[in-house]
Amino acid sequence: MIIAMVTGNVWATRKEDTLNGLKLMIVQRIDPTCGDAHESFIAVDCVGAGIGEQVLVVTGSSARKALPNFDTPVDAAIVGIIDQVTAQPGA
Amino acid sequence: MIIAMVTGNVWATRKEDTLNGLKLMIVQRIDPTCGDAHESFIAVDCVGAGIGEQVLVVTGSSARKALPNFDTPVDAAIVGIIDQVTAQPGA
Amino acid sequence: MIIAMVTGNVWATRKEDTLNGLKLMIVQRIDPTCGDAHESFIAVDCVGAGIGEQVLVVTGSSARKALPNFDTPVDAAIVGIIDQVTAQPGA
Amino acid sequence: MIIAMVTGNVWATRKEDTLNGLKLMIVQRIDPTCGDAHESFIAVDCVGAGIGEQVLVVTGSSARKALPNFDTPVDAAIVGIIDQVTAQPGA
Amino acid sequence: MIIAMVTGNVWATRKEDTLNGLKLMIVQRIDPTCGDAHESFIAVDCVGAGIGEQVLVVTGSSARKALPNFDTPVDAAIVGIIDQVTAQPGA
Repeated sequence: MIIAMVTGNVWATRKEDTLNGLKLMIVQRIDPTCGDAHESFIAVDCVGAGIGEQVLVVTGSSARKALPNFDTPVDAAIVGIIDQVTAQPGA
Repeated sequence: MIIAMVTGNVWATRKEDTLNGLKLMIVQRIDPTCGDAHESFIAVDCVGAGIGEQVLVVTGSSARKALPNFDTPVDAAIVGIIDQVTAQPGA
Repeated sequence: MIIAMVTGNVWATRKEDTLNGLKLMIVQRIDPTCGDAHESFIAVDCVGAGIGEQVLVVTGSSARKALPNFDTPVDAAIVGIIDQVTAQPGA
Repeated sequence: MIIAMVTGNVWATRKEDTLNGLKLMIVQRIDPTCGDAHESFIAVDCVGAGIGEQVLVVTGSSARKALPNFDTPVDAAIVGIIDQVTAQPGA
Repeated sequence: MIIAMVTGNVWATRKEDTLNGLKLMIVQRIDPTCGDAHESFIAVDCVGAGIGEQVLVVTGSSARKALPNFDTPVDAAIVGIIDQVTAQPGA
C-alpha cells in the first residue's frame, strides 16, 4: 500500500453502471520517509476521506476487495485515514 | 484509475476471438493536477468515448470486470467520461 | 494493452511443463503516437505473429486468459496483429 | 519478491474493517546486490518483523495469500526475515 | 515474462509456512536485445536453475501458477532455463 494526500475530486456522469455511487478522489502519492510528492491518480474512497487528509491507498486487484461488490472495475481504493507515521530512514 | 486523453484508434483484423467487437482506443495518461501528458497505451472502450475526450481508465485485471465476459484478455478499459476535475495541488 | 514490435525468439528446453508447445517471442514496446521504442520483454504468441510485425500485447494476469489453460504461468501474450493505427497526439 | 528494510510504523484508526488487527509497517526497498535504497511503501507484517530488519516482501494480489483472509484489501506483505544474502553481481 | 541472470541466493529461516522448501534466488533482469542489466529482485526457482544461468522469469499473480500450491504468496518465479535468444533490434 502507499500513503497519499487527497487533493481533489473527479466527476463522471457517463460511466460503468457498477461505478455508480462511488466517490472518486484524486490522490497524490507521498513518500512516508522524506515527504516527497509523486504522481497523482484516481482512487475510490471507502472510508470517508476529505481533501487534505493523508490516506492509505491499496492498488491493483486488491482494491476490489475494499468494495461491497468484488467485481467492480477499480484498481485503487482509499482504505484508511493516516493518524501517525513514525519512520527512521536508514534504520 | 488514471485520467487519460483519447487520441486515436487501433485496428487488428487477426486477433484473439474474444476481442472481436471490442473498440480499441489509444489513450494518453495525463496528470489530473498539472495536466502533464505521459505515456500512451491501448484500452478497450466501454462507455462510447470519442477522440479528444478525457476519460477514466482502469488497468490490470480489474479492466476485465468492465466487460461482459470477465475472461477477455484485456488489461485496460475506459470506464467513464470525465465531466469535471477539481484538484488542489499540495492541499 | 500495448503496441510492440516482434524482434526475436527465445528457446528454453528446460521449462515448466505447462509452457510446452508455446511460442515465446521477444517484443519491444513502441509508443503508438510518436513511435519511440521502449524496453523489451518476452510474450507468448497466440495469433501467429512474425518477426517485424507490430502486435497488440496484453500483460499481467489477463495474459493467461488468452491461452487455452488459464492456469499457465505467463504474464504477457500477443493477442492481435496491428493493421492500422490512427493517432492524433494532443487531440 | 523484493528485499526491504523495515523503517517505521503507520497508524490508522479509521480504516476498512478487514484491516483491523493487522500491523502496518513502512518498508524501503533495497537492492540485494549493491545495497542501494529505493522507494518506501507500506506492507502488512505477517512474520513479526522489527524496525531495522531486512525482510522479504511480496507485492500485488499475491500479498493477500499471506493473510488468513484472502479477501483482505492489501497489496504488500512481509513474508520472511532475511538471514543471509549471497550475491555475485554479473555472475 | 522477462529474461534474467541468476546472481545469488537468499535465506530466511523465519517465514510464511507456505514458503518452506522453496528455493529463493536473486535474479537480475537483462535486456534480451542489448544485454543491459537492470534491477535485481527475488524469485522462486521452479526448474533447478543455477547461479550464472540466464532464465525466464514470470512475475505477478501468474508466478503462483508455477507452484504446486496456487495460494503460495509469491510474485516471481523462474519457469525456464534459456538455451538461445535470437533478436533483431529494430526488426
